[in-house]
Amino acid sequence: MVSPKFEKYVNDNLNSFAKEVMKLSAQPSVSARKEGIEECAAMVEKMVRDTGAETKVLRIDAAAPLVYGEIKSTRSKKTIMFYNHYDVQPEEPLELWKSPPFKPEIRDGVIYGRGVSDDKGELVSRLKIVESYLKTEGELPCSVKFCFEGEEESGSVHLGDYVSKYSDLFKADAVVWEYGTVDTKGTPKVTLGVKGMIYVEFVLKSLSQDAHSSYAAVLPSAPWRMVRLLNLLKDENERVLVPGWYDGVMTLAEDELGVLQEMPFDGAGFKKTFGAGNFLGGIGDDQAKKALVQRPTGNIAGIWAGYQGPGGKTVLPKEIHVKMDFRLVPDQDPDDLWKRMRKYLDDNGFADVEMQLESMEPAARTSYKDPFAQAAIQAAEKVYGKKPVVELSSPGTGPLYLFTRRYSMPSADIGVSAEDGGIHAPNENLKLEDLRKGMIWIAETMELFSAA
Amino acid sequence: MVSPKFEKYVNDNLNSFAKEVMKLSAQPSVSARKEGIEECAAMVEKMVRDTGAETKVLRIDAAAPLVYGEIKSTRSKKTIMFYNHYDVQPEEPLELWKSPPFKPEIRDGVIYGRGVSDDKGELVSRLKIVESYLKTEGELPCSVKFCFEGEEESGSVHLGDYVSKYSDLFKADAVVWEYGTVDTKGTPKVTLGVKGMIYVEFVLKSLSQDAHSSYAAVLPSAPWRMVRLLNLLKDENERVLVPGWYDGVMTLAEDELGVLQEMPFDGAGFKKTFGAGNFLGGIGDDQAKKALVQRPTGNIAGIWAGYQGPGGKTVLPKEIHVKMDFRLVPDQDPDDLWKRMRKYLDDNGFADVEMQLESMEPAARTSYKDPFAQAAIQAAEKVYGKKPVVELSSPGTGPLYLFTRRYSMPSADIGVSAEDGGIHAPNENLKLEDLRKGMIWIAETMELFSAA
Repeated sequence: MVSPKFEKYVNDNLNSFAKEVMKLSAQPSVSARKEGIEECAAMVEKMVRDTGAETKVLRIDAAAPLVYGEIKSTRSKKTIMFYNHYDVQPEEPLELWKSPPFKPEIRDGVIYGRGVSDDKGELVSRLKIVESYLKTEGELPCSVKFCFEGEEESGSVHLGDYVSKYSDLFKADAVVWEYGTVDTKGTPKVTLGVKGMIYVEFVLKSLSQDAHSSYAAVLPSAPWRMVRLLNLLKDENERVLVPGWYDGVMTLAEDELGVLQEMPFDGAGFKKTFGAGNFLGGIGDDQAKKALVQRPTGNIAGIWAGYQGPGGKTVLPKEIHVKMDFRLVPDQDPDDLWKRMRKYLDDNGFADVEMQLESMEPAARTSYKDPFAQAAIQAAEKVYGKKPVVELSSPGTGPLYLFTRRYSMPSADIGVSAEDGGIHAPNENLKLEDLRKGMIWIAETMELFSAA
Repeated sequence: MVSPKFEKYVNDNLNSFAKEVMKLSAQPSVSARKEGIEECAAMVEKMVRDTGAETKVLRIDAAAPLVYGEIKSTRSKKTIMFYNHYDVQPEEPLELWKSPPFKPEIRDGVIYGRGVSDDKGELVSRLKIVESYLKTEGELPCSVKFCFEGEEESGSVHLGDYVSKYSDLFKADAVVWEYGTVDTKGTPKVTLGVKGMIYVEFVLKSLSQDAHSSYAAVLPSAPWRMVRLLNLLKDENERVLVPGWYDGVMTLAEDELGVLQEMPFDGAGFKKTFGAGNFLGGIGDDQAKKALVQRPTGNIAGIWAGYQGPGGKTVLPKEIHVKMDFRLVPDQDPDDLWKRMRKYLDDNGFADVEMQLESMEPAARTSYKDPFAQAAIQAAEKVYGKKPVVELSSPGTGPLYLFTRRYSMPSADIGVSAEDGGIHAPNENLKLEDLRKGMIWIAETMELFSAA
């Protein structure tokens, strides 16, 4: 159990922890634009070293550096790995930010800035937990490893290579995943998995140059062909039409449905946040809750062709681009689905469409019955004074499978963020009180798991 | 018949005419961006006045000024109107221009710059024809009116208001429309009409803010709804599916089909220019030729939503925009079709889609048997030494109907440009030799029509 002096140290130093979060967030590190990555990795390495860890900056050609760290403990034989990332999402649309995304500031006890929550606030919190232990107890409850990568927001395209190349380094008994939240009522959430994803950019070119739109009477149109392609990909019930897409989909067991049932879900609030009149297909809250855990998606994240300015330009665009992310559930195999999609498009007259792979990763899940999951759940109850929400899987994606599959280790998403933290959006934020409590929660989880 | 001294004057002053074209084209006047319009109108007014015409700068609230001019002649009772426009298309994509679009330059006897052909070169040529007459003959073969507007590239949205408000000014016996070309073999083309157009921007909003794309499992997607909407609008055979869309479509008469038959058409060259493997639907050259004259279109001129940058941003876009131009033929009524489209979308679950009207105009055609058409055809034969191509209608659009309907006047597109002049595209150009010969062609047409 976390000691009173540990808690006091965290309380007393919270403002200095916040400053570290702001300092790291002030360094842009947008992996989509490969911007500031080296600078940010150097800052992170120094922070890890200053904590007292042995560090290595791992490198692979054309990849963002991976900052690795390790601190041993004699208090138990267990090792917990902290996975986090120092890269961030693009900051657009800029005009919706109330303060500049890369000049973090505190307003009313809340830090605002790109990355303060996802994932630099989380990353810094892990280091400060270690610092707090070493300053107050002299030792950690278990050995700790840090795996801080710089390409998570670009699909962690090289993390697999890193794990393969340095496979000894990453062995551990459990992994604390990047991100954990409390909801608006202060109830913590333990998330036990992620969906998988295929992110693809489709490019269709029909002409060698843009034409005057009067020639649309005779020339083929890339945008119209793309409309037909998209129409082939999904039906009106949101079902992906690629043959075999749902073949591997695991169904939830009876007891898992029970856990899902217990998970609160404010459907009305969710819809209100996004100004949505209804959920997709008019489904109710229970079905929506299940869909977030278990429904594969096919989302148009971006589409563009031709003229986007004011007024009317009469142009027949030579090409069109569509970015799509397909979320996957256990046990859909992205490699297999990628090939099936290619074949499906080939078979339906779209052999000429380019499929540019941005990223690809399968889903991963830990059973809620696993001892590490149970440690996180019990620690939450202790620290927050109430049962946490247990989420079988996040609707989001991460490269969790790289660790959970290779080392057969359990994982849990626990952390310092909040549901309304504005991740991937303007005015991303982190509350100081959530930072404080989340740090104690993670420490308590370490204690329980190490003692087990 | 045009006199030798008229011809000599044109030949001797060709370089100074070219300089005037470049001077006017150096003034940006992109109506889509409402940029430089006032400055350009002032330049045009001075040019018209310097020619010796009485001028008026007509104004209507929120409209680009219309430069009007008039010079009387006692040589005949006929009046010919020259319709041109001083606004230009946007210059994007900038990176494909070999020289800056608004710094015109001459390379190997060809002027390059935005608007040098469409329509500032044409506009200046009309003024220089008048100047050449007055300097060499002292008088014009007929009275002349100039109607130079500044919103043609934005669908001439106020030209109808101008014509209604100042209806006396625009009365004439024939109108020389904005633009005429020679093909790559030096054969001139007489075009006798234009298609109509509805230009609309569809806007679909499904959310009040962009969402993380993991929520695509439950939140509605504006892009997907737009795919369904577009799919409702046109079938795989390029047919617009709005009920009644083709009800008014006139079929070509036997003799018109004969004229169409005579029109040469280099299908292979056309396809090669645009790098198109096939015409739409695999049609042959004869059908393509007919489609350019008589097929209504529905073109996606622009489409955009979500993330368009490098890498993969996982976003569910809150809205999507699509710009479409629908070309119309006689006798489709755009007002009626607009209402039908609205109803069709309402009836099919898209009552919430915004239809923002950019412009709307019906088609217009003059019979090839009309005396003015015949004057243009015979003048071409005289000046170029070969039969011109007679085009029953351009595949493009212009507000021709405003004049031809109200005043029951014939029209012909004759001019100084070339088929490969790159209009609406990068590296728009005008050959000096085409400028010279086109001026004599127009003058000869004036002579023949005035004498008839």
